Amino acid sequence: MLNNIFSLIILQSLIAFQLGAQSDSSVLSSFFKTALTQDKAYADLHDLCKKVGPRLSGSDNAARAVLLTQQLLKNAGADTVWLQDVMVPHWIRGGKEKAFYEPASGSKTILPVRVCALGGSVPTPLAGITAEMVEVQGLGELSKMDPAAIRGRIVFYNGAFDQSEMETFEAYSKAVQQRWGGAMESARYGAMGVVVRSMSQHVDEWPHTGSMGYNDSIVKIPAVAISTADAENLSKALKQNQHLVFTFKTSCQTLPDVRSANVIGEIKGSEYPNEVIVIGGHLDSWDLAEGAQDDGAGVVQAIEVIRLYKTLGIKPKRTIRVVAFMNEENGLRGGKEYASQAAKGDEKHIAAIESDAGGFTPRGFTLDVKPELRVAIQKSWKSLLDKFEIGDLDNDGAGADVSPLKDTCPLLAELHPDSQRYFDFHHSARDVFENVNDRELEMGAAAMASFVYLIDRYGTNP
Amino acid sequence: MLNNIFSLIILQSLIAFQLGAQSDSSVLSSFFKTALTQDKAYADLHDLCKKVGPRLSGSDNAARAVLLTQQLLKNAGADTVWLQDVMVPHWIRGGKEKAFYEPASGSKTILPVRVCALGGSVPTPLAGITAEMVEVQGLGELSKMDPAAIRGRIVFYNGAFDQSEMETFEAYSKAVQQRWGGAMESARYGAMGVVVRSMSQHVDEWPHTGSMGYNDSIVKIPAVAISTADAENLSKALKQNQHLVFTFKTSCQTLPDVRSANVIGEIKGSEYPNEVIVIGGHLDSWDLAEGAQDDGAGVVQAIEVIRLYKTLGIKPKRTIRVVAFMNEENGLRGGKEYASQAAKGDEKHIAAIESDAGGFTPRGFTLDVKPELRVAIQKSWKSLLDKFEIGDLDNDGAGADVSPLKDTCPLLAELHPDSQRYFDFHHSARDVFENVNDRELEMGAAAMASFVYLIDRYGTNP
Repeated sequence: MLNNIFSLIILQSLIAFQLGAQSDSSVLSSFFKTALTQDKAYADLHDLCKKVGPRLSGSDNAARAVLLTQQLLKNAGADTVWLQDVMVPHWIRGGKEKAFYEPASGSKTILPVRVCALGGSVPTPLAGITAEMVEVQGLGELSKMDPAAIRGRIVFYNGAFDQSEMETFEAYSKAVQQRWGGAMESARYGAMGVVVRSMSQHVDEWPHTGSMGYNDSIVKIPAVAISTADAENLSKALKQNQHLVFTFKTSCQTLPDVRSANVIGEIKGSEYPNEVIVIGGHLDSWDLAEGAQDDGAGVVQAIEVIRLYKTLGIKPKRTIRVVAFMNEENGLRGGKEYASQAAKGDEKHIAAIESDAGGFTPRGFTLDVKPELRVAIQKSWKSLLDKFEIGDLDNDGAGADVSPLKDTCPLLAELHPDSQRYFDFHHSARDVFENVNDRELEMGAAAMASFVYLIDRYGTNP
Repeated sequence: MLNNIFSLIILQSLIAFQLGAQSDSSVLSSFFKTALTQDKAYADLHDLCKKVGPRLSGSDNAARAVLLTQQLLKNAGADTVWLQDVMVPHWIRGGKEKAFYEPASGSKTILPVRVCALGGSVPTPLAGITAEMVEVQGLGELSKMDPAAIRGRIVFYNGAFDQSEMETFEAYSKAVQQRWGGAMESARYGAMGVVVRSMSQHVDEWPHTGSMGYNDSIVKIPAVAISTADAENLSKALKQNQHLVFTFKTSCQTLPDVRSANVIGEIKGSEYPNEVIVIGGHLDSWDLAEGAQDDGAGVVQAIEVIRLYKTLGIKPKRTIRVVAFMNEENGLRGGKEYASQAAKGDEKHIAAIESDAGGFTPRGFTLDVKPELRVAIQKSWKSLLDKFEIGDLDNDGAGADVSPLKDTCPLLAELHPDSQRYFDFHHSARDVFENVNDRELEMGAAAMASFVYLIDRYGTNP
């Protein structure tokens, strides 16, 4: 027994020595090989998706996800794991939504359509809302219309994704204004409710939910998302019949706030324990599916960074802290609470990197940094990262959850994976474990570990 | 009417003038935007997969694919479309294969397993082959064994993909030696037949076929691929029972060669019509599915290059020629015939680029060129290609079909897409249209057009 312990100590020392002598390139290579071979992030994602499932803020499942994530962080080898309390909104969908229309006035044919309430929406009256419909392609078109054409009607926002954008997030950020602002802008003109084309590149049967905003000084009207296939058909029907009558019923509601938590685990830094590198994803998901890509993937990738450090026996100089943020989807309360607490302590946050763009093959990182830091990072690290095809550092941006750290943290970033398939799944019932490829997920985890490794080793003055 | 024609001519002249003044970057950008917006390569792929389907060399479907591809090339705007005769092998699978084993000797339990004959295999006797089994992890292990342990047995090659490889093609090229050489090597020692673990990263239910070799001086024994899930279970059962008896039955056969064709279409060059840039994929597929990724994707991407030139009104200086090669999968007769004819003419082939690694998001191109040409290409074009995330030019290789041009053509290349999901589908019943993402496919087509554009504009001495 003693012999075995001594052998183990000698073996670990040898590994540590060899790692010290290793080039950065071989460390990064070990991250990729280990993640791909052990496939542990994928196993964690399986548990989060299949043992918990959908985990909208305030739900019982979100509470269960907090417990599971604590355990996953301990299993991965975090020195310390704790919860950070945060009060979150508690919106519930209620019963299954219904919607239908009469393609021809007074016809007996009634076409059902697939819709889901937008997150945060008020419900319709019990009988639903029935009204004539007016179609627009976006907020810009609405703002130019005669208010009389809107009053008493349901506004149908049918602006499609711009397919010519190479990055699907660019198309999303243009189209999503309809979802966020559609109800409040329509309400100004006396609309009864809004139907928004789902935020997806593809024409298919799945409605995609997502958060929406209200303006407290304007009446709140209910809003649903409609599947893209139904949106296309509805648009055609409206061209045939301008007096088309549309009905939808929802029973969602907002309950009192609930106490929840960010889940945090870390490896303490050996030289600069007060210098913190935050990595994370958000633990909450929408309620229609398992939140596998959005953002179970990001949570398990961050946890995998700790596991990779532990498995390979690498001791970070700085503290590497995983934060599984609560409530990104409909409030960002977790990200705000973390930043608020971080501002009070004597720790120095030197970098914060989120993964919240899906578990697809990584291409690089978007950065929210001063221009001179971007140049320094590109000059020092790009050629190494390029060897692993993760050297794209040209784009702006950081994860929503780490953005509240902007005033105090010089390096905010987000993992930048291939984006082509993301909106096939995002916020819809298709965002399930089966639609994540294990190798793509693991490569993203290794990419996160690689960037963290360089920041830990060289600081944010590379 | 005349007015309209004049307007059209003026419009086209204006477009042509503007294109002349455009930067290379804006031309490449137009390729991507147009391909993504029009989505025509995807529509062509739909036709190839759903109107024709599987198209193994020598089959009626392969003949139908030839006719359809001629039409697709004409529709895309090729100046000239023709067929190049080529005789191809004609192997057929025959009836559905069967395989099963008794996990315990003399037990009444019989476990069925999912297998498919390897392409080119001889059949088993009508009653099948029943024998004890010996498991090896590859040809190396086999070569070290006592021949007595192999004689009269079925050899089970269970070497798995090396998951630590970042590029799945690297893992494939190591493992596939079992499939190609397994039967001929086992036959040296008197084996009755071979069962080969499917060439896939994942453990699932799908057997993957693929070509195998025989040595004419050694007896030919039948070979099947087994699904990875069944391979795992079989391996466990063999550890429990070294006398496990395995049975498989196949009825495949090789019929006389059949006359078939490469399908060729081109846009003649305006300045150097005798300088040819070949782009292509292979039109034949395995018989288990629609050959959507392998290699319908490559064929429609090459056709899309012609459509993009025509749509954007770009006139190439050199001749851009699409070749849909026949018989890549089990003979390479099309590629060899094309090169043989090319050597006879007075044309100069300056580049040949195949797409045969799947319709996934492109990352760059593998090159088979002299070192000084690689350096020149990287120096001149990499930074531009990087803007479109297709600047990875570090790897060696070219498509199988263009490789026979090596002696006469200075620049051989292959589109290099993301490889993580390729072997989930490759040569299995899962290689269907539904498993191709339209945007990923179209971006690969735009990448092909981009590389062709630079070669046409600057030649192979950039």
